Order: sequence, then C-alpha cells, then structure tokens
Amino acid sequence: MKASELQTVSIDLAERSYNIAIRGSLFDNPLSYAELPKAGAALIVTNTTVGPLYAQPLKKALAPQYAQVHTVVLPDGEEFKTWESLNLIFDALLSHACDRKTTLFALGGGVVGDMTGFAAASYMRGVPFVQVPTTLLAQVDSSVGGKTAINHPLGKNMIGAFYQPLKVVCDLDTLKTLPQRELSAGLAEVIKYGPIADMDFFAWIEANLGAIQARESAALAHIVKRSCEIKAWVVGQDEREAGLRAILNFGHTFGHAIEAGLGFGVWLHGEAVGCGMVMAAQLSARLGLVDAFFVNRLTQLIAKAGLPVKAPLLDVADNAGRYLSLMRVDKKAEAGEIKFVLIDKPGHAVVRGAPDDVVRQVIDAGCKE
Amino acid sequence: MKASELQTVSIDLAERSYNIAIRGSLFDNPLSYAELPKAGAALIVTNTTVGPLYAQPLKKALAPQYAQVHTVVLPDGEEFKTWESLNLIFDALLSHACDRKTTLFALGGGVVGDMTGFAAASYMRGVPFVQVPTTLLAQVDSSVGGKTAINHPLGKNMIGAFYQPLKVVCDLDTLKTLPQRELSAGLAEVIKYGPIADMDFFAWIEANLGAIQARESAALAHIVKRSCEIKAWVVGQDEREAGLRAILNFGHTFGHAIEAGLGFGVWLHGEAVGCGMVMAAQLSARLGLVDAFFVNRLTQLIAKAGLPVKAPLLDVADNAGRYLSLMRVDKKAEAGEIKFVLIDKPGHAVVRGAPDDVVRQVIDAGCKE
Repeated sequence: MKASELQTVSIDLAERSYNIAIRGSLFDNPLSYAELPKAGAALIVTNTTVGPLYAQPLKKALAPQYAQVHTVVLPDGEEFKTWESLNLIFDALLSHACDRKTTLFALGGGVVGDMTGFAAASYMRGVPFVQVPTTLLAQVDSSVGGKTAINHPLGKNMIGAFYQPLKVVCDLDTLKTLPQRELSAGLAEVIKYGPIADMDFFAWIEANLGAIQARESAALAHIVKRSCEIKAWVVGQDEREAGLRAILNFGHTFGHAIEAGLGFGVWLHGEAVGCGMVMAAQLSARLGLVDAFFVNRLTQLIAKAGLPVKAPLLDVADNAGRYLSLMRVDKKAEAGEIKFVLIDKPGHAVVRGAPDDVVRQVIDAGCKE
Repeated sequence: MKASELQTVSIDLAERSYNIAIRGSLFDNPLSYAELPKAGAALIVTNTTVGPLYAQPLKKALAPQYAQVHTVVLPDGEEFKTWESLNLIFDALLSHACDRKTTLFALGGGVVGDMTGFAAASYMRGVPFVQVPTTLLAQVDSSVGGKTAINHPLGKNMIGAFYQPLKVVCDLDTLKTLPQRELSAGLAEVIKYGPIADMDFFAWIEANLGAIQARESAALAHIVKRSCEIKAWVVGQDEREAGLRAILNFGHTFGHAIEAGLGFGVWLHGEAVGCGMVMAAQLSARLGLVDAFFVNRLTQLIAKAGLPVKAPLLDVADNAGRYLSLMRVDKKAEAGEIKFVLIDKPGHAVVRGAPDDVVRQVIDAGCKE
C-alpha cells in the first residue's frame, strides 16, 4: 500500500453512512471538507495539548466552508471527560448563538471525540459533527462507530448517545508527533482486532511492530485502515450493540474497572485495555476456551507494544471484590451478572458470564508480584 | 364519547411506534403495564409534589413486571430542569447498578417527562422509558412526540434528544386534583391545536370551557385525545422537526423569551405559551395574514382559560431588544434570523421570518398598560 495514496473506509449505516479518509496532509487541506454542507458557523472542539498545534491550520482549512469558525479548548485528559467539560462546549455554542446547522469538529484524541460527539448529539437535539482524530487510539477506535459519552464518577462512558459523524479525517502525520505513551495506548486497540476477528492481522503486527513504532507511514496507514475496516464490518452489522458489537469490548470489562478503580486518567484508556486483554485471555484459558500458548503470545505482543500486562492493586483488603463490584456496573452487565468478552478460539470472540471464583483467580494471579 | 372507555392514540414512527392510553383509573392498574418487557429493575422518576401522591400506587402497579422498583424524587419546577437534577437520575441509576434493560417511568408533569426522557436517552446510551403524565400540559403535549431536554442558563430546552417512550399512560383522574393554575397552563397547549390545525376543535373548546374547567371526565377525555391525535399526525410526518413539526411551536418563540427573560419558573411554560400565542397572532395580523377578529377571538379564549395575554416587561431600557436577543437563540433560528410560527389562515400555520421593526411593534404594544 502506498502511504501517499488516499485510503477510504466506508461505514455502511443506511442514511447515517459516512466515510473515513486516511492519509498524511489531510486535516489542514480544505479539500478534505469540501463535500460537507456549507453552514454559517463551525465550532472546533480541541484540548490544551492539541489546540496550540493544530487549531489554527484547521480553522484556515474550514474557512471556505463556514462564514465563522469558533474554537473551544477543553482541559486534556480522561479525568476531564465530565459534564463540566461538556458544558464548556454548550456555553461556546450558545454564547456564539450557534444554530441547528452549526457543524462541530472534534480535533484531538478519544476524549475530545467522545465529548464533541455527545455535545453534537444533544445540542438542540442534534447538530452535525466531523471527527478529526489526532491520536492512534482515536483513529482506530473511538472515531469509528458513533459511540459518544462522558464519564460519571460511578462508571465510565455511562452517559452518552449513539450518534454518527458526517465524516472522519484521519491524518497520519498527526501520529508522527504523538508521545510514545499515547502511541502504545493506541496500539492496544489495534492489537485487539487480532484475537477477536483477524489473526492474520495479528501476525502482521507482530512482524511489523518495529516499523509501527518507528512511525513509518506505510505501516501506520495499514494498521489504521485495517482496524477501521474490521470495526466498520462489526458496527455495520450491529450499530446499537444489541449483540455482535460487544466483541469490540474485548479487554474493556477489566480495563474499565482499572480506570475507574485507579481514578480516571491515572492509566490511559489504552493501557487499561492492554492489561484488560491479558486478564480476559487468562480468564478464557481458565475456562478452557484457549490454550496457554495463545495467552503467552498475546501477552508478549502487548508487553512489546509498551503496555502494562500486570493488573494493578485496587484495594488492599479485598482486591478481587473491588474489581468485581466495579465490573458489575459495566454496561454489558445484566441483572448484576458481568458479561465478559472472551476468546473461544484465536480470531473469534464470545460474550458470556463466568463464575466469580474463576474471575477472582485471574485477578489474584494478575496482581501477584 | 364515554369517559369510562379506554381511548388509544397511536404514534406511528416505524420501529419507534407507541400508544397513548387515555382514561381514568389507569396509572395504578397493573394491566396498564402488562405488555411492557419484563426487566430486573424499574426507576420511577417523580417530583416533590407528585411523588407523595402517586409514587407508592405506581410502585405497587409495577411490581408484577419488575423485580425491583426504585424511586428518585426531583425538586419541582421549570427552574430545576437542569443538569444537576438530571444527574440525580443518573446517580440513582448507578447507585442501584441499573442495567441496560432498566425501564424509567416519568411520573409527573412536563419537566419530569423531559428530564426522564433525556436521562433514558443518555443512560448507557439508551434505556427504555414510559411516560405517566399527571398534568394536562404533559398529557396533551410534552409526553407525545419524543422531545426530551434540559434547559441551559442561556436558553430553554437547548440540550436534549429525540427519544420515544415505550408507552404513554394518561390517567384522567390525576387531572382532578391539579391546581387551577396548572390546568390553565395545560389549556394553552390544548387551545394551540385550534389555530394551527383544527378550528372545529377550537370552537368545541370555546363551547365547552365550563365543562373542562369543572373537570368533567368526558370533556377532559375529549381534549386529551384530540390534542394527542393532532400532535401524533404532525409528529408522524416529521419526527425530527425538519419542517412541519415546527408549527407545534406556535406561541413558543415569544413564550420561550418570556420564560428565559423572567427566569425559568416565574411564569409556567403554558402561561408563557398562552401569552406568546397572542403575540404571534398579533404579529400575523400586522403582517396581513389574519384579521383582527381572529386575534380577538383567540385572545378572549386564552384569557377565559385563565392565562395571561399581556406581555411582561423584560427590560426597562430596551424591552423589545431584549425579547429579540432572547428569540435569536431559539432553536428554529437560522443564521441569526428568528423564525416565527404564524397563522396564515385560522387552522393553518406557517413558519417564516418577520421584519424586526414589526416584531418590535408587537412587543411594544403588548407591554403597554
């Protein structure tokens, strides 16, 4: 695949269908936005890290399309994925008297994307929005599929909407300056697609991890495109997570407990998912679904990607109990029973419950020195 | 129409279709809920006024359907239609570890319905909900059509979602104990359906206002059913307010300015709409769309219903300017141009702009002693 060629992934959702454009030199190019409906105003939503780098070039690129382009800058970090930050977006929209045709642009990582999407879903009961993800995690995961949300102190992503963007613009050049820790966090969601859907892709990542970590354009283009394709295939079949879509949450049940238990923002979301995948694989093995070879292979790639593989201690007195109680408020839980995304053979996932005592063994083993 | 007979109005919205049941002795009857999907938990959302009267009987009626029925009680009034109140619902849902199948019941007036609907739309990105409206306004207007929202200090209903309930249960007996002021406020939305859609209905209300104000069951049954039918007809053609649905906002552009300008909760929503309809009719007349006879006829019925017909002063220095700036953040505004719902002949509405100076004349005339 030539890195200089524009790649497109289509998300097929009837009248809510949209395209993901993937290449370098995209986000600051007016042509990337030329097919969007013209409107009186646009609002760029970004954060204190990304804004100083990219807000001005984006504003310039949007000028032919919108008479006025406003910007709102949110604090950076998962711990700010709150109502208070969301309200900064509403304040900006209302103080500029933005109408129903105003288009929101999410310029940043997954937190900016999730909050901008929920603001767009809710402002005047729905205005258009565009994702311009600048982190690997946002490009391969959170900008695809229309899940938007904010956190509640008692649980992650508990308040939100299914709401699709008009377009996603993945500019690979923005990944070149991404901090190493953010790149690793994004890789967790890339690696995820292997065990749940495509072990050939998994093997490709194993073989090309060096090129990815060196940020070679062709390697970045491949992982972004393939991840988006797999996610598009899943979401196209189950937009509102009635069934299949839940497999995208591999590693997330344990991962969300880690994030909430340590406090949002202590571990990056991708770090929690990386460790959560190891735990979910171990649980799959303890239930006899996969063998130790698979668990080791997955654990090694996650570790090589620079991600934690050892579960953190959340509670000195009853650590496993704390994990379990945090997991019971997971959105997949039903009548208090935790639903885990498990691997029943490499490349295939299943959603099911597990006996508490087996889950406890996984947590206890994972937290031992 | 026999008052003891169950009336049903169908809202036809493809897979989001639902029914409105209208009769006395409905809300506390388990049969009203027997067709709903069973689930582990339900949450009744009510307020400090309605809760003490009706929460226990509703809880009892829901017991066959839900293993656990929780209740959350919100402060009563439009001034509490805020994020803070909404968050009390999320706190209740999360502290009871409510899952995606938990059903919310909105037991109260329009404020409770709007907030419960938005909470249901947003909790875990969507859980089912049922409307049990206990005010005339909620029965004839806010519980039909799926508009949910909270207020923002800079504008009414600015943050929300289109989200349809599973069912609406209109118990006419709850109107028997409604304070007179609340009954009048509800009548504003009933009267509204005349000028925009059905002048025969308008004439019926003129002829039967005494029976309505005496809370005669047959009269209440007729106005609730006919109002829901007209709204259902409009919403069925335009669920997301792309065009026609905006006519339901007759009186609301001026009305929202009054509510926001005086401070939410000073005038009831229906009072502001009553006065707003008079102003919108006057504007229609000044633009040559209707004659003075129609304006007088409408004004008289609104006054007889116990509603204000004289616009309040919002600003001593520049009252009309204050109205105009408040109306410019209306959701129907486009690129700063206010869109008014006007009557172009009795029984038919049109959405259009109007010159600022004519709008000023209406406001100045309406605020004179």
